[in-house]
Amino acid sequence: MIVYGDTASGNCYKIKLLLSFLNIEHEWRHVDILAGECQRPAFKQLNPNGKIPLLQLASGETLSESNAILNYLAEGTEWLPQQPWLRAKVLQWQFFEQYSHEPFIAVARYIAVYLGLPAERKAEYDSKQLGGHKALAVMEQQLSQTNYLVGSGATIADISLYGYTHVADEGGFDLSGYPAITDWLQRITEIAGYIPMKDNEL
Amino acid sequence: MIVYGDTASGNCYKIKLLLSFLNIEHEWRHVDILAGECQRPAFKQLNPNGKIPLLQLASGETLSESNAILNYLAEGTEWLPQQPWLRAKVLQWQFFEQYSHEPFIAVARYIAVYLGLPAERKAEYDSKQLGGHKALAVMEQQLSQTNYLVGSGATIADISLYGYTHVADEGGFDLSGYPAITDWLQRITEIAGYIPMKDNEL
Ligand SMILES: N[C@@H](CCC(=O)N[C@@H](CS)C(=O)NCC(=O)O)C(=O)O
Ligand SMILES: N[C@@H](CCC(=O)N[C@@H](CS)C(=O)NCC(=O)O)C(=O)O
Repeated sequence: MIVYGDTASGNCYKIKLLLSFLNIEHEWRHVDILAGECQRPAFKQLNPNGKIPLLQLASGETLSESNAILNYLAEGTEWLPQQPWLRAKVLQWQFFEQYSHEPFIAVARYIAVYLGLPAERKAEYDSKQLGGHKALAVMEQQLSQTNYLVGSGATIADISLYGYTHVADEGGFDLSGYPAITDWLQRITEIAGYIPMKDNEL
Repeated sequence: MIVYGDTASGNCYKIKLLLSFLNIEHEWRHVDILAGECQRPAFKQLNPNGKIPLLQLASGETLSESNAILNYLAEGTEWLPQQPWLRAKVLQWQFFEQYSHEPFIAVARYIAVYLGLPAERKAEYDSKQLGGHKALAVMEQQLSQTNYLVGSGATIADISLYGYTHVADEGGFDLSGYPAITDWLQRITEIAGYIPMKDNEL
Protein backbone atom coordinates (compact mmCIF):
# COMPACT_ATOMS: atom_id res chain seq x y z
CA MET A 1 0.00 0.00 0.00
CA ILE A 2 1.38 3.38 -1.05
CA VAL A 3 0.11 6.74 0.18
CA TYR A 4 0.98 9.85 -1.83
CA GLY A 5 0.88 12.86 0.45
CA ASP A 6 2.44 15.80 2.23
CA THR A 7 2.54 15.41 5.98
CA ALA A 8 1.93 19.14 6.57
CA SER A 9 -1.44 18.95 4.74
CA GLY A 10 -4.37 18.24 7.04
CA ASN A 11 -6.10 16.14 4.38
CA CYS A 12 -3.02 13.91 4.17
CA TYR A 13 -2.42 13.91 7.91
CA LYS A 14 -5.89 12.39 8.42
CA ILE A 15 -4.68 9.28 6.57
CA LYS A 16 -1.35 9.24 8.38
CA LEU A 17 -3.13 9.45 11.73
CA LEU A 18 -5.55 6.58 11.03
CA LEU A 19 -2.72 4.41 9.67
CA SER A 20 -0.85 5.05 12.89
CA PHE A 21 -3.89 4.31 15.11
CA LEU A 22 -4.43 1.07 13.18
CA ASN A 23 -0.71 0.32 12.92
CA ILE A 24 -0.97 -0.42 9.19
CA GLU A 25 2.28 -0.81 7.27
CA HIS A 26 2.60 1.33 4.17
CA GLU A 27 4.96 3.35 2.03
CA TRP A 28 4.59 7.16 2.22
CA ARG A 29 5.60 9.03 -0.95
CA HIS A 30 6.05 12.73 -0.48
CA VAL A 31 4.40 14.96 -3.08
CA ASP A 32 5.41 18.63 -3.20
CA ILE A 33 2.23 20.67 -3.72
CA LEU A 34 3.88 24.07 -4.05
CA ALA A 35 6.29 22.71 -6.67
CA GLY A 36 3.19 21.73 -8.68
CA GLU A 37 3.81 17.99 -8.50
CA CYS A 38 0.05 17.27 -8.21
CA GLN A 39 -0.54 18.83 -11.61
CA ARG A 40 2.20 16.93 -13.47
CA PRO A 41 1.11 14.33 -16.05
CA ALA A 42 2.73 11.46 -14.11
CA PHE A 43 0.63 12.25 -11.03
CA LYS A 44 -2.55 13.03 -12.98
CA GLN A 45 -2.37 9.54 -14.46
CA LEU A 46 -2.82 8.29 -10.90
CA ASN A 47 -5.40 10.93 -9.91
CA PRO A 48 -7.02 12.85 -12.78
CA ASN A 49 -8.25 15.38 -10.22
CA GLY A 50 -4.62 16.24 -9.36
CA LYS A 51 -4.90 16.14 -5.58
CA ILE A 52 -3.32 14.42 -2.61
CA PRO A 53 -3.84 12.32 -0.54
CA LEU A 54 -4.01 9.33 -2.85
CA LEU A 55 -4.01 5.66 -1.87
CA GLN A 56 -2.58 3.05 -4.21
CA LEU A 57 -3.11 -0.66 -3.62
CA ALA A 58 -0.60 -3.35 -4.53
CA SER A 59 -2.83 -4.09 -7.56
CA GLY A 60 -2.14 -0.57 -8.82
CA GLU A 61 -5.71 0.63 -8.26
CA THR A 62 -6.02 4.10 -6.79
CA LEU A 63 -8.43 5.87 -4.44
CA SER A 64 -8.55 9.63 -3.91
CA GLU A 65 -10.42 11.89 -1.45
CA SER A 66 -9.14 11.79 2.11
CA ASN A 67 -12.50 10.88 3.61
CA ALA A 68 -13.14 8.05 1.13
CA ILE A 69 -9.69 6.66 1.97
CA LEU A 70 -10.49 6.84 5.70
CA ASN A 71 -13.72 4.89 5.16
CA TYR A 72 -11.89 2.23 3.16
CA LEU A 73 -9.10 1.78 5.71
CA ALA A 74 -11.41 1.87 8.75
CA GLU A 75 -13.92 -0.72 7.47
CA GLY A 76 -14.19 -3.57 9.98
CA THR A 77 -12.37 -1.65 12.74
CA GLU A 78 -13.70 0.22 15.78
CA TRP A 79 -13.08 3.48 13.88
CA LEU A 80 -16.16 2.88 11.69
CA PRO A 81 -19.36 1.64 13.38
CA GLN A 82 -21.41 -1.12 11.75
CA GLN A 83 -24.83 0.31 12.63
CA PRO A 84 -26.33 2.05 9.55
CA TRP A 85 -27.51 5.17 11.38
CA LEU A 86 -24.11 5.69 13.02
CA ARG A 87 -22.36 5.14 9.68
CA ALA A 88 -24.62 7.77 8.13
CA LYS A 89 -23.79 10.17 10.97
CA VAL A 90 -20.05 9.59 10.37
CA LEU A 91 -20.59 10.51 6.72
CA GLN A 92 -22.67 13.55 7.70
CA TRP A 93 -19.72 14.95 9.66
CA GLN A 94 -17.26 14.09 6.91
CA PHE A 95 -19.31 15.86 4.24
CA PHE A 96 -19.76 18.77 6.65
CA GLU A 97 -15.99 18.85 6.95
CA GLN A 98 -15.40 19.01 3.21
CA TYR A 99 -18.14 21.55 2.51
CA SER A 100 -18.54 23.78 5.55
CA HIS A 101 -15.22 23.51 7.43
CA GLU A 102 -12.21 22.74 5.22
CA PRO A 103 -12.92 25.43 2.55
CA PHE A 104 -12.76 28.07 5.30
CA ILE A 105 -10.34 26.84 7.95
CA ALA A 106 -7.90 24.91 5.76
CA VAL A 107 -7.86 27.56 3.06
CA ALA A 108 -7.22 30.38 5.57
CA ARG A 109 -4.38 28.31 7.03
CA TYR A 110 -3.01 27.58 3.55
CA ILE A 111 -2.93 31.29 2.70
CA ALA A 112 -1.22 32.08 6.01
CA VAL A 113 1.18 29.13 6.43
CA TYR A 114 2.02 27.98 2.91
CA LEU A 115 1.83 31.34 1.15
CA GLY A 116 2.86 33.64 4.03
CA LEU A 117 -0.33 35.76 3.91
CA PRO A 118 0.56 37.87 0.84
CA ALA A 119 -1.24 41.24 0.58
CA GLU A 120 -3.17 40.21 -2.55
CA ARG A 121 -4.83 37.34 -0.67
CA LYS A 122 -5.57 39.20 2.57
CA ALA A 123 -9.19 39.91 1.54
CA GLU A 124 -9.79 36.22 0.74
CA TYR A 125 -8.16 35.25 4.05
CA ASP A 126 -10.45 37.66 5.93
CA SER A 127 -13.51 36.36 4.07
CA LYS A 128 -12.83 32.86 5.43
CA GLN A 129 -13.16 33.82 9.09
CA LEU A 130 -16.97 33.98 9.33
CA GLY A 131 -17.57 30.59 7.70
CA GLY A 132 -14.82 29.00 9.79
CA HIS A 133 -16.35 30.24 13.02
CA LYS A 134 -19.78 29.02 11.89
CA ALA A 135 -18.34 25.53 11.40
CA LEU A 136 -16.61 25.63 14.78
CA ALA A 137 -19.89 26.64 16.44
CA VAL A 138 -21.64 23.62 14.91
CA MET A 139 -18.89 21.35 16.27
CA GLU A 140 -18.93 23.05 19.67
CA GLN A 141 -22.66 22.44 20.00
CA GLN A 142 -22.22 18.69 19.37
CA LEU A 143 -19.09 18.29 21.49
CA SER A 144 -20.62 20.05 24.46
CA GLN A 145 -23.14 17.18 24.50
CA THR A 146 -20.97 14.18 23.56
CA ASN A 147 -17.29 13.25 23.94
CA TYR A 148 -16.91 12.36 20.28
CA LEU A 149 -18.82 13.44 17.19
CA VAL A 150 -20.68 10.15 16.64
CA GLY A 151 -21.64 7.47 19.14
CA SER A 152 -19.69 6.81 22.30
CA GLY A 153 -16.15 6.35 20.96
CA ALA A 154 -13.77 7.97 18.50
CA THR A 155 -14.53 7.35 14.82
CA ILE A 156 -13.09 8.50 11.52
CA ALA A 157 -15.50 11.46 11.76
CA ASP A 158 -13.31 12.72 14.61
CA ILE A 159 -10.16 12.13 12.55
CA SER A 160 -11.63 14.06 9.61
CA LEU A 161 -12.48 17.06 11.77
CA TYR A 162 -9.34 16.84 13.87
CA GLY A 163 -7.14 17.27 10.77
CA TYR A 164 -7.65 21.00 10.35
CA THR A 165 -9.36 21.95 13.63
CA HIS A 166 -6.24 21.28 15.67
CA VAL A 167 -4.28 23.73 13.53
CA ALA A 168 -7.14 26.23 13.09
CA ASP A 169 -5.13 28.81 15.08
CA GLU A 170 -2.65 28.84 12.16
CA GLY A 171 -5.53 30.12 10.01
CA GLY A 172 -6.35 32.85 12.52
CA PHE A 173 -9.08 31.00 14.45
CA ASP A 174 -8.80 31.49 18.20
CA LEU A 175 -10.11 28.30 19.81
CA SER A 176 -10.24 29.70 23.34
CA GLY A 177 -13.94 30.47 22.83
CA TYR A 178 -14.64 26.78 22.13
CA PRO A 179 -14.04 24.86 25.37
CA ALA A 180 -15.74 21.62 24.22
CA ILE A 181 -13.62 21.56 21.04
CA THR A 182 -10.50 22.24 23.09
CA ASP A 183 -11.25 19.29 25.40
CA TRP A 184 -12.01 17.02 22.44
CA LEU A 185 -8.74 17.96 20.72
CA GLN A 186 -6.90 16.93 23.88
CA ARG A 187 -8.88 13.66 24.07
CA ILE A 188 -7.77 12.68 20.55
CA THR A 189 -4.09 13.14 21.42
CA GLU A 190 -4.50 10.66 24.28
CA ILE A 191 -5.57 7.77 22.03
CA ALA A 192 -2.88 5.06 21.72
CA GLY A 193 -0.96 5.46 18.49
CA TYR A 194 -1.51 9.21 18.18
CA ILE A 195 1.15 11.07 16.19
CA PRO A 196 1.45 14.81 15.72
CA MET A 197 1.06 16.37 12.30
CA LYS A 198 4.55 17.61 11.64
CA ASP A 199 6.24 14.28 12.43
CA ASN A 200 7.65 13.33 9.08
CA GLU A 201 8.57 9.87 10.27
CA LEU A 202 5.44 7.71 10.39
CA MET B 1 -39.87 9.92 7.09
CA ILE B 2 -39.79 13.64 6.41
CA VAL B 3 -37.48 15.37 3.93
CA TYR B 4 -36.94 19.12 4.27
CA GLY B 5 -35.93 20.53 0.92
CA ASP B 6 -36.42 22.73 -2.11
CA THR B 7 -37.01 20.78 -5.30
CA ALA B 8 -35.12 23.32 -7.42
CA SER B 9 -31.91 22.73 -5.41
CA GLY B 10 -29.67 20.03 -6.87
CA ASN B 11 -28.62 18.86 -3.41
CA CYS B 12 -32.29 18.29 -2.51
CA TYR B 13 -33.17 16.84 -5.91
CA LYS B 14 -30.58 14.09 -5.36
CA ILE B 15 -32.70 12.84 -2.46
CA LYS B 16 -35.96 13.25 -4.34
CA LEU B 17 -34.54 11.26 -7.27
CA LEU B 18 -33.32 8.34 -5.15
CA LEU B 19 -36.61 8.23 -3.23
CA SER B 20 -38.38 8.00 -6.56
CA PHE B 21 -36.07 5.29 -7.94
CA LEU B 22 -36.60 3.29 -4.73
CA ASN B 23 -40.28 4.17 -4.51
CA ILE B 24 -39.99 5.13 -0.83
CA GLU B 25 -42.95 6.87 0.75
CA HIS B 26 -42.15 10.12 2.53
CA GLU B 27 -43.37 13.59 3.33
CA TRP B 28 -41.62 16.47 1.52
CA ARG B 29 -41.58 19.78 3.43
CA HIS B 30 -40.67 22.76 1.32
CA VAL B 31 -38.07 25.12 2.80
CA ASP B 32 -37.61 28.53 1.19
CA ILE B 33 -33.87 29.23 1.03
CA LEU B 34 -34.10 32.77 -0.32
CA ALA B 35 -36.59 33.73 2.39
CA GLY B 36 -33.91 32.66 4.89
CA GLU B 37 -35.90 29.77 6.34
CA CYS B 38 -32.74 27.65 6.74
CA GLN B 39 -31.29 30.21 9.15
CA ARG B 40 -34.35 30.51 11.40
CA PRO B 41 -34.08 29.14 14.94
CA ALA B 42 -36.83 26.55 14.34
CA PHE B 43 -34.89 25.05 11.44
CA LYS B 44 -31.48 25.36 13.12
CA GLN B 45 -32.80 23.24 15.96
CA LEU B 46 -33.19 20.47 13.38
CA ASN B 47 -29.91 21.22 11.57
CA PRO B 48 -27.45 23.45 13.44
CA ASN B 49 -25.58 23.91 10.15
CA GLY B 50 -28.69 25.60 8.66
CA LYS B 51 -28.83 23.74 5.35
CA ILE B 52 -31.18 21.60 3.34
CA PRO B 53 -31.70 18.79 2.47
CA LEU B 54 -32.44 17.30 5.87
CA LEU B 55 -33.90 13.88 6.63
CA GLN B 56 -35.97 13.31 9.74
CA LEU B 57 -36.92 9.82 10.89
CA ALA B 58 -40.17 8.97 12.67
CA SER B 59 -38.09 8.87 15.89
CA GLY B 60 -37.31 12.57 15.39
CA GLU B 61 -33.62 11.96 14.70
CA THR B 62 -32.16 14.04 11.87
CA LEU B 63 -29.49 13.54 9.21
CA SER B 64 -28.03 16.33 7.10
CA GLU B 65 -25.69 16.37 4.07
CA SER B 66 -27.24 15.19 0.82
CA ASN B 67 -24.60 12.53 0.19
CA ALA B 68 -24.84 11.09 3.71
CA ILE B 69 -28.62 10.86 3.27
CA LEU B 70 -28.15 9.06 -0.07
CA ASN B 71 -25.86 6.51 1.58
CA TYR B 72 -28.35 5.91 4.38
CA LEU B 73 -31.33 5.45 2.05
CA ALA B 74 -29.44 3.31 -0.49
CA GLU B 75 -27.98 0.83 2.02
CA GLY B 76 -29.01 -2.70 1.07
CA THR B 77 -30.24 -1.69 -2.40
CA GLU B 78 -28.59 -2.00 -5.81
CA TRP B 79 -27.77 1.72 -5.63
CA LEU B 80 -24.95 1.07 -3.14
CA PRO B 81 -22.61 -1.88 -3.79
CA GLN B 82 -21.59 -4.17 -0.93
CA GLN B 83 -18.00 -4.70 -2.05
CA PRO B 84 -15.67 -2.47 0.06
CA TRP B 85 -13.58 -1.19 -2.84
CA LEU B 86 -16.68 -0.20 -4.85
CA ARG B 87 -18.19 1.48 -1.79
CA ALA B 88 -14.99 3.47 -1.35
CA LYS B 89 -15.12 4.48 -5.01
CA VAL B 90 -18.73 5.67 -4.58
CA LEU B 91 -17.57 7.84 -1.68
CA GLN B 92 -14.59 9.10 -3.70
CA TRP B 93 -16.97 10.46 -6.34
CA GLN B 94 -19.32 11.91 -3.73
CA PHE B 95 -16.52 13.77 -1.94
CA PHE B 96 -15.24 14.90 -5.34
CA GLU B 97 -18.72 16.24 -6.01
CA GLN B 98 -18.86 18.26 -2.80
CA TYR B 99 -15.32 19.61 -3.03
CA SER B 100 -14.39 19.93 -6.71
CA HIS B 101 -17.72 20.09 -8.56
CA GLU B 102 -20.58 21.59 -6.53
CA PRO B 103 -18.69 24.70 -5.27
CA PHE B 104 -18.11 25.69 -8.90
CA ILE B 105 -21.03 24.41 -10.96
CA ALA B 106 -23.81 24.72 -8.36
CA VAL B 107 -22.61 28.10 -7.14
CA ALA B 108 -22.37 29.52 -10.68
CA ARG B 109 -25.91 28.25 -11.32
CA TYR B 110 -27.12 29.70 -8.01
CA ILE B 111 -25.73 33.14 -8.91
CA ALA B 112 -27.32 32.95 -12.37
CA VAL B 113 -30.67 31.25 -11.66
CA TYR B 114 -31.55 32.20 -8.08
CA LEU B 115 -29.94 35.64 -7.99
CA GLY B 116 -30.30 36.60 -11.65
CA LEU B 117 -26.55 37.21 -12.21
CA PRO B 118 -26.31 40.63 -10.52
CA ALA B 119 -23.37 42.80 -11.58
CA GLU B 120 -21.68 42.63 -8.18
CA ARG B 121 -21.40 38.85 -8.42
CA LYS B 122 -20.32 38.63 -12.05
CA ALA B 123 -16.61 38.33 -11.14
CA GLU B 124 -17.37 35.46 -8.75
CA TYR B 125 -19.53 33.80 -11.42
CA ASP B 126 -16.69 34.08 -13.93
CA SER B 127 -14.19 32.71 -11.42
CA LYS B 128 -16.25 29.50 -11.13
CA GLN B 129 -15.93 28.55 -14.79
CA LEU B 130 -12.37 27.15 -14.75
CA GLY B 131 -12.94 24.89 -11.72
CA GLY B 132 -16.26 23.70 -13.14
CA HIS B 133 -14.69 22.69 -16.43
CA LYS B 134 -11.87 20.91 -14.58
CA ALA B 135 -14.45 18.83 -12.71
CA LEU B 136 -16.34 18.07 -15.93
CA ALA B 137 -13.08 16.93 -17.56
CA VAL B 138 -12.45 14.48 -14.70
CA MET B 139 -15.96 13.06 -15.15
CA GLU B 140 -15.60 12.91 -18.94
CA GLN B 141 -12.40 10.88 -18.62
CA GLN B 142 -14.17 8.28 -16.43
CA LEU B 143 -17.40 8.19 -18.42
CA SER B 144 -15.58 7.73 -21.72
CA GLN B 145 -14.34 4.42 -20.26
CA THR B 146 -17.38 3.21 -18.29
CA ASN B 147 -21.16 3.65 -18.56
CA TYR B 148 -21.51 4.71 -14.92
CA LEU B 149 -19.05 6.25 -12.47
CA VAL B 150 -18.52 3.12 -10.36
CA GLY B 151 -18.85 -0.54 -11.31
CA SER B 152 -21.20 -1.73 -14.03
CA GLY B 153 -24.51 -0.21 -12.94
CA ALA B 154 -25.88 3.08 -11.68
CA THR B 155 -25.07 3.93 -8.05
CA ILE B 156 -25.66 6.86 -5.74
CA ALA B 157 -22.36 8.26 -7.06
CA ASP B 158 -24.19 8.85 -10.35
CA ILE B 159 -27.12 10.46 -8.55
CA SER B 160 -24.77 12.79 -6.64
CA LEU B 161 -23.06 13.95 -9.82
CA TYR B 162 -26.23 14.01 -11.88
CA GLY B 163 -27.80 16.55 -9.51
CA TYR B 164 -25.92 19.60 -10.75
CA THR B 165 -24.28 18.27 -13.93
CA HIS B 166 -27.60 17.97 -15.74
CA VAL B 167 -28.29 21.68 -15.10
CA ALA B 168 -24.68 22.83 -15.57
CA ASP B 169 -25.76 24.80 -18.65
CA GLU B 170 -27.77 27.06 -16.30
CA GLY B 171 -24.43 27.97 -14.69
CA GLY B 172 -22.88 28.77 -18.06
CA PHE B 173 -21.24 25.40 -18.71
CA ASP B 174 -21.66 24.24 -22.29
CA LEU B 175 -21.77 20.43 -22.20
CA SER B 176 -21.45 19.95 -25.96
CA GLY B 177 -17.71 19.44 -25.51
CA TYR B 178 -18.38 16.48 -23.19
CA PRO B 179 -19.93 13.68 -25.27
CA ALA B 180 -19.48 10.95 -22.66
CA ILE B 181 -21.17 13.08 -19.99
CA THR B 182 -23.99 13.88 -22.41
CA ASP B 183 -24.60 10.17 -23.09
CA TRP B 184 -24.47 9.36 -19.36
CA LEU B 185 -27.00 12.11 -18.55
CA GLN B 186 -29.36 10.54 -21.08
CA ARG B 187 -28.75 7.06 -19.61
CA ILE B 188 -29.83 8.25 -16.14
CA THR B 189 -33.14 9.61 -17.46
CA GLU B 190 -33.95 6.15 -18.87
CA ILE B 191 -33.84 4.40 -15.48
CA ALA B 192 -37.30 3.33 -14.26
CA GLY B 193 -38.64 5.81 -11.72
CA TYR B 194 -36.69 8.79 -13.07
CA ILE B 195 -38.28 12.17 -12.37
CA PRO B 196 -37.12 15.55 -13.63
CA MET B 197 -35.88 18.22 -11.24
CA LYS B 198 -38.57 20.82 -11.52
CA ASP B 199 -41.44 18.44 -10.87
CA ASN B 200 -42.78 19.73 -7.61
CA GLU B 201 -45.06 16.75 -7.23
CA LEU B 202 -42.97 13.79 -6.09
N1 LIG C 1 -11.24 16.82 -1.20
C1 LIG C 1 -9.86 16.46 -1.23
C2 LIG C 1 -9.03 17.69 -1.07
C3 LIG C 1 -7.57 17.38 -1.28
C4 LIG C 1 -6.77 18.65 -1.50
O1 LIG C 1 -7.29 19.76 -1.62
N2 LIG C 1 -5.47 18.45 -1.57
C5 LIG C 1 -4.54 19.55 -1.77
C6 LIG C 1 -3.51 19.54 -0.66
S1 LIG C 1 -4.26 19.67 0.94
C7 LIG C 1 -3.82 19.33 -3.09
O2 LIG C 1 -3.54 18.20 -3.46
N3 LIG C 1 -3.50 20.40 -3.82
C8 LIG C 1 -2.65 20.24 -4.96
C9 LIG C 1 -3.01 21.06 -6.11
O3 LIG C 1 -4.14 21.60 -6.10
O4 LIG C 1 -2.17 21.14 -7.03
C10 LIG C 1 -9.55 15.47 -0.12
O5 LIG C 1 -10.22 15.50 0.92
O6 LIG C 1 -8.65 14.64 -0.29
N1 LIG D 1 -23.09 19.98 1.74
C1 LIG D 1 -24.51 20.22 1.79
C2 LIG D 1 -24.84 21.46 1.03
C3 LIG D 1 -26.27 21.86 1.22
C4 LIG D 1 -26.53 23.28 0.79
O1 LIG D 1 -25.61 24.03 0.44
N2 LIG D 1 -27.80 23.63 0.80
C5 LIG D 1 -28.23 24.95 0.42
C6 LIG D 1 -29.28 24.82 -0.65
S1 LIG D 1 -28.69 23.95 -2.07
C7 LIG D 1 -28.85 25.64 1.61
O2 LIG D 1 -29.49 24.98 2.41
N3 LIG D 1 -28.67 26.93 1.76
C8 LIG D 1 -29.42 27.64 2.77
C9 LIG D 1 -28.67 28.68 3.48
O3 LIG D 1 -27.41 28.68 3.33
O4 LIG D 1 -29.31 29.45 4.19
C10 LIG D 1 -25.26 19.03 1.21
O5 LIG D 1 -24.72 18.34 0.35
O6 LIG D 1 -26.38 18.76 1.66
